[in-house]
Amino acid sequence: MSTYSVPGFDAAGIAANIKKSGAPDLTLIASQTPCRAAATFTTNKFPAAPVLYDQQVLSLNPEGIHAVIINSGCANACTGVEGTANTKRTAEAVASALGASENSVLVMSTGVIGVQLPMEKLLAGAPKVVEALRPDGWEDASRAIMTTDTRPKLFTHTATIGGKSVRFTGISKGAGMIHPNMATMLSTIVTDAHIAQPLLQQALSAAVGKSFNCISIDGDTSTNDTVILLANGFAGNTEITSASSAEYSAFVDALTTICIDLAQAVVRDGEGVTKFVTIQVNGAISDAEAHAGANTVATSPLVKTAFFGNDANWGRILAAIGRAGIAVEPATCSLFVTGGAPKGERLPELQLVAAGTPLRYQEADAAARFAQAELDVRVELGLGNGSATVWTCDLSHEYVSINGDYRS
Amino acid sequence: MSTYSVPGFDAAGIAANIKKSGAPDLTLIASQTPCRAAATFTTNKFPAAPVLYDQQVLSLNPEGIHAVIINSGCANACTGVEGTANTKRTAEAVASALGASENSVLVMSTGVIGVQLPMEKLLAGAPKVVEALRPDGWEDASRAIMTTDTRPKLFTHTATIGGKSVRFTGISKGAGMIHPNMATMLSTIVTDAHIAQPLLQQALSAAVGKSFNCISIDGDTSTNDTVILLANGFAGNTEITSASSAEYSAFVDALTTICIDLAQAVVRDGEGVTKFVTIQVNGAISDAEAHAGANTVATSPLVKTAFFGNDANWGRILAAIGRAGIAVEPATCSLFVTGGAPKGERLPELQLVAAGTPLRYQEADAAARFAQAELDVRVELGLGNGSATVWTCDLSHEYVSINGDYRS
Repeated sequence: MSTYSVPGFDAAGIAANIKKSGAPDLTLIASQTPCRAAATFTTNKFPAAPVLYDQQVLSLNPEGIHAVIINSGCANACTGVEGTANTKRTAEAVASALGASENSVLVMSTGVIGVQLPMEKLLAGAPKVVEALRPDGWEDASRAIMTTDTRPKLFTHTATIGGKSVRFTGISKGAGMIHPNMATMLSTIVTDAHIAQPLLQQALSAAVGKSFNCISIDGDTSTNDTVILLANGFAGNTEITSASSAEYSAFVDALTTICIDLAQAVVRDGEGVTKFVTIQVNGAISDAEAHAGANTVATSPLVKTAFFGNDANWGRILAAIGRAGIAVEPATCSLFVTGGAPKGERLPELQLVAAGTPLRYQEADAAARFAQAELDVRVELGLGNGSATVWTCDLSHEYVSINGDYRS
Repeated sequence: MSTYSVPGFDAAGIAANIKKSGAPDLTLIASQTPCRAAATFTTNKFPAAPVLYDQQVLSLNPEGIHAVIINSGCANACTGVEGTANTKRTAEAVASALGASENSVLVMSTGVIGVQLPMEKLLAGAPKVVEALRPDGWEDASRAIMTTDTRPKLFTHTATIGGKSVRFTGISKGAGMIHPNMATMLSTIVTDAHIAQPLLQQALSAAVGKSFNCISIDGDTSTNDTVILLANGFAGNTEITSASSAEYSAFVDALTTICIDLAQAVVRDGEGVTKFVTIQVNGAISDAEAHAGANTVATSPLVKTAFFGNDANWGRILAAIGRAGIAVEPATCSLFVTGGAPKGERLPELQLVAAGTPLRYQEADAAARFAQAELDVRVELGLGNGSATVWTCDLSHEYVSINGDYRS
């Protein structure tokens, strides 16, 4: 068994000429038997055609899913009835090539909004990507969903549940329009765990709440955000049927672990990113307020450009907290920073602000922390027990370049 | 009488060495007699020391104001009790040099957050700026409040109210951290109109709601936002005492006109701005929802970088509307664009989207509009009568450069 393979699942990624560049643009993930599926979707009011299609399929057939087909290069969003029909034709072509029943194939799309899918290319690509399926096709699969991503995001995780070794493998993509409000751009995770369908959805929602919903690159929630989780039961564990069981807890923990890996990888490869930043807000009057505060810091252009410039201009962080629409008392507010190498050890934490007032620290000490490739910011509001952590990045020249001429 | 002078008011701007660069940094606007004042302030939860001070002065003495002293180069925000004391000492020094009573001088500050005011420089500057006062000192006054602004913002407007010629002159500054939620960065407006104090405040709040509260540069609401309006009655009109009078309407109209001039000038000179964009949202279920929709478009990094890149990537506009948290139905949504030279004639309006679906327009026609220095975007939601207009700008490399090393 290769590094990423999960019993009973196959994956593939090919070039179907949807992208002008000729880069890989069609991914298929397939289960050898009908499997259970759960998903979370964007809350954007202009949901893409595949989002609406998948919601319909899952409401009719959540326990008989065969595959997920994903194209990059065209989002099929804001495309009206033609877009809806094209999604259905794509799913039917893949189902037919797989020999699977109708309503057993989910669809994801990512790319430019407002452009119709090139259907002749998709229909020609469907049998080819089915033919390319293999247990160790995950690296190809993770590459063919990329748009402005600079590297694939592919993770695997193994947990012991009910005495059996259970595997999880997931891929994600997304580098811009990343500010999830239910799920982020695109991610598909498969597992060989045996678990009841309602619990599968419950576990995914819990894991997404602590991973994909805690990242922001640019504050823009996409029209296509989707996370799909497939479970085929090949691990042989006794079916997990109770949300209060130790096995369910172990399943949620393992799923959350791989979701955090996938979500953080999206931020680390965000458009133009030079710095990975963790924003922790504690002492808010609720977790929701802490999250709102951390999100406001994470989406402030002034804060993000200061991160890019290695500038310890912490006043912008407090100014963002102050406009977040949450309960704040300057007199109880403190600010701490630390930093280090990627996923490495951190410098000692430095307190910059106490009681809303600057401490007399050495500027060089603050600058040293802001200059690290990974920066950790901790705001203590001192009002209650609410806390939240958000992962984000800086705003660089490269972000402006990438998005100033994305379509050209 | 010079272009900008208003009977009974003097202005000055000098260099007091608060800025490292030696550029002018201390402005004084003074009334020859005690006058009436109204103001609107930031809603940021970390209000700067001068914001809190002015609120206190106005609650005690709104009809006996002598002057507004404004320093640039230091925001005096997040500066604790020392900052509060420094604001009071500044006001007292100016009052003393003017021979005015305590509690008759308002204070504004703008610059870096979290740094204490250099009090010896401010106290030395106070008598000098008083000595520099003159009726035509407005250009100096408008220059000494600049930070990252590239040009002063100074406007005058004359209206006939109750048979008398009434003058308004105003200055504003602000180029970053601009996303007002009651008032924008700093603006002072003076008028020789005679008007009751409660109506002065009512008129200012109404005018600010249609001007400063309708602009956004980067979505960040400052800790120092303040608009102050002084009225000394020198025009000789009968005092305006009724909100239902024709004279009050004329006053609000004239005040709104100069506030829109000042607010738009802030956007046109925004940090790194290459394009002035008007976002109009109609057909929302309320004005508030229309404003929320327009604001979300105006603060989307993806939309703003597309503006910078002259890229007619309108899908990002609808994606922003779709995440604005307002009622939206794709099937009733239309999108139109036009553009032209600054304040000049526009190209014919081009419809890009009907019923949430792209029309078959020529790409070159859309690109021609996005390439204009002024771009007008109109979203029709088709749900109700709510509408709003927001003025904003693009997000450029220059914005990132300016804010990546603002303090260095």
